[in-house]
Amino acid sequence: MPKKQQPSIEARTLKGFRDFLPRAALTRQRVIQTIVATYESFGFVPLETPALEYADILAGKYGDEGEKLMYRFRDQGGREVALRYDLTVPLARVVGQQNEQELPRPFRRYQIAPVWRAENTQKGRFREFTQCDADIVGSSSMLADAEIALLIATALKKLSFTDYEIRLNNRKLLNGFLEAVKIPEERWLPTLRILDKWEKIGADAVQSELSAGMSGKQIDALFDLMPTDEEADDSGSWGKRIAKQMKKTSEGAEGLKELQAVRTLIEAVGMDDVFRFDVLLARGLDYYTGTIFEAVLTNKPEFGSVFGGGRYDGLIGLFTGKEIPAVGVSAGIDRIVAAMAELELDEGGASTADVLVTIMEADDVQDMLKLAADLRNEGIKAELFYEPARLEKQLKYADSRGIPLALILGSEEKSRREVAVKILAEKRQIKVRRGEIAKAIREILDEKE
Amino acid sequence: MPKKQQPSIEARTLKGFRDFLPRAALTRQRVIQTIVATYESFGFVPLETPALEYADILAGKYGDEGEKLMYRFRDQGGREVALRYDLTVPLARVVGQQNEQELPRPFRRYQIAPVWRAENTQKGRFREFTQCDADIVGSSSMLADAEIALLIATALKKLSFTDYEIRLNNRKLLNGFLEAVKIPEERWLPTLRILDKWEKIGADAVQSELSAGMSGKQIDALFDLMPTDEEADDSGSWGKRIAKQMKKTSEGAEGLKELQAVRTLIEAVGMDDVFRFDVLLARGLDYYTGTIFEAVLTNKPEFGSVFGGGRYDGLIGLFTGKEIPAVGVSAGIDRIVAAMAELELDEGGASTADVLVTIMEADDVQDMLKLAADLRNEGIKAELFYEPARLEKQLKYADSRGIPLALILGSEEKSRREVAVKILAEKRQIKVRRGEIAKAIREILDEKE
Repeated sequence: MPKKQQPSIEARTLKGFRDFLPRAALTRQRVIQTIVATYESFGFVPLETPALEYADILAGKYGDEGEKLMYRFRDQGGREVALRYDLTVPLARVVGQQNEQELPRPFRRYQIAPVWRAENTQKGRFREFTQCDADIVGSSSMLADAEIALLIATALKKLSFTDYEIRLNNRKLLNGFLEAVKIPEERWLPTLRILDKWEKIGADAVQSELSAGMSGKQIDALFDLMPTDEEADDSGSWGKRIAKQMKKTSEGAEGLKELQAVRTLIEAVGMDDVFRFDVLLARGLDYYTGTIFEAVLTNKPEFGSVFGGGRYDGLIGLFTGKEIPAVGVSAGIDRIVAAMAELELDEGGASTADVLVTIMEADDVQDMLKLAADLRNEGIKAELFYEPARLEKQLKYADSRGIPLALILGSEEKSRREVAVKILAEKRQIKVRRGEIAKAIREILDEKE
Repeated sequence: MPKKQQPSIEARTLKGFRDFLPRAALTRQRVIQTIVATYESFGFVPLETPALEYADILAGKYGDEGEKLMYRFRDQGGREVALRYDLTVPLARVVGQQNEQELPRPFRRYQIAPVWRAENTQKGRFREFTQCDADIVGSSSMLADAEIALLIATALKKLSFTDYEIRLNNRKLLNGFLEAVKIPEERWLPTLRILDKWEKIGADAVQSELSAGMSGKQIDALFDLMPTDEEADDSGSWGKRIAKQMKKTSEGAEGLKELQAVRTLIEAVGMDDVFRFDVLLARGLDYYTGTIFEAVLTNKPEFGSVFGGGRYDGLIGLFTGKEIPAVGVSAGIDRIVAAMAELELDEGGASTADVLVTIMEADDVQDMLKLAADLRNEGIKAELFYEPARLEKQLKYADSRGIPLALILGSEEKSRREVAVKILAEKRQIKVRRGEIAKAIREILDEKE
């Protein structure tokens, strides 16, 4: 290794890939820790799967678009491999490989890991992003759907969001209704995709897109699903009218029963005020088979859905040959972090340290190192400045990193076996006896919270 | 998505890649959390870099062997890309890209992330493994080396290991000595690699390997470096003799000064009892330029080094054109986890839950869901059983997952507005009033700790 080298290769990152510098990485960590704590409070357990899979495990699972965006290559041993595209197919693979001794049923697992998709970066999309999934595998009980609904509500609350709603629907309701108005089955998915855009593109555009494949009568019937102006203020009466429509087909009736079961359970916990039935909510419907969830921040709707999920009974059994029911949720970490920044919900700085241990004189180095070690032993995060320097320079450093306190050993304090603890934000300091520094720092930190 | 599909593709993982099922994933998480907490207690901050880099950023940095083991391919845009091979070159890239406003000097960063190497799996090596690095960039002060040494000692202690030593050396010492016995510079690295194997292959094999390129006199001089039988019991007298040898060249003298500076600082903190000077410790010496560390478990030496690191002043400046001093450490997660299992230091089960909320009757579902939600609100991790079932079946499930407590609402308790909390390990239960469940559970959990 040459000691010096001209920078002939420019330091750069790939388009769509990101470095997270300390401040951003710390914020992401806090968000992920809060979500993991919520998942674990419901008894979910972690599963980790490799970044690379045999390409044929992932192939054909994500549609034509997914096939194009998957990072595939041939490894040194000539195997066709691919980078993880999501966390759901790897979960299905694990379920196909493991017996029930290792993976109980129902299996509540979470996984937080990056996935890779060669997306068009011009749309603001990233090619590497972190997924944050929790799924319940092996239960068709609506209790599982209700737990996922409560999980989303609990996570949003723990993340300190105040204005949000969780939209709730059931794929069977929509299917049943499309069947009732005699729309042929092959047109269900395209129709649902158009309906899903209602909020974005408006009623007129929806009507015009639908008219390509539906009669005016069918469109009128669909539009009748929407709440009238009076019903918009009284969701109960709208719900009753819709329910009557849904009962016309067996699939619609089943969907209604499921939706009502989930609602009843949510009500039992007293968390129903943040949920709202949304008959048009579709999400990737070729995937979901029952309940659908989507959480949006009502004071920041432009961020889109921050949590999304639902029941998908057809996917997890893929490698077992039999259907295994599943319901789950995925958190949109990038959106959550961005929204928290705009709402000023994240107060963290660019440092992990509680206190900067300054060094005034070369002779003090050992003393200050010992003070730092003692503080760490007492659970205080202490960062040591690396060389004797002017106090001003060291305090400026602490301030720029967001370290709230500085420990200073001036000549006056030294003679009295004391140190000074400077509270940077308040521009004041207190004198503390040597043996009581950790206690004093903890008191200051507790006060600040 | 077809509702049912024959399992035409066998569920399998790539050779050298692993799934971590819940029990193993939880153990790894606990180890990583302990190490991160230690890194943060020293003021280290996280940095995250992408899994994929431009191939030319990584190329030529890891020797011929590394070049062969790197996963390289061409992406959809025709770019030559490669999977991250370690965390040090990406750190050098970031330092080359960012100014000091974002990355202060010295920059103490940690990164915990997987790296990929197409290793020979027959040697028990993995192709995907997690690195756990902490580095101080931009300081040539021996205080930085001492902090890394203390970081290792603190992490080992926090991980609950009791028998370990941290071997300490300085590359300049070895260089100076080889120079003093007139071994030509181009033979230094091969010689050090042979000496590094002393413990593994023994003195005779070392002598025979050395004799290929060295005179008998030179080998004798080298062997004189070793402690005699008397010196083995009195490391002080050995140190004095070695020190005299080292002072014969300027590089050796410099190395001695650095080593002594690090030792003095460690002694000031009173942690010198776990450190041992090891004149033969080399590690990847084409990389390191000064201090070298290596931690081994003295009651489990077969696991090799569990922490390793040192000073490498030539690498981080790679993309800046000027030398930037750096010193750091990497934790061997796989080895630490394996050693903890053998030493029975990890007590965790396969579950995250504190309590299983059982369901005895279908009518109780809402009630039990509410009880679970209330417990979670009070910070208790509560897992809900997913359907009414025989109590025996539910308790067996809790036991198999390592959930310590079960909440039971029998008919007798119901009439009294009580619940039963079963302590599974003790095969006993207590009756608790409805409003006091969280408090009672916390008391039981605190007692168990």
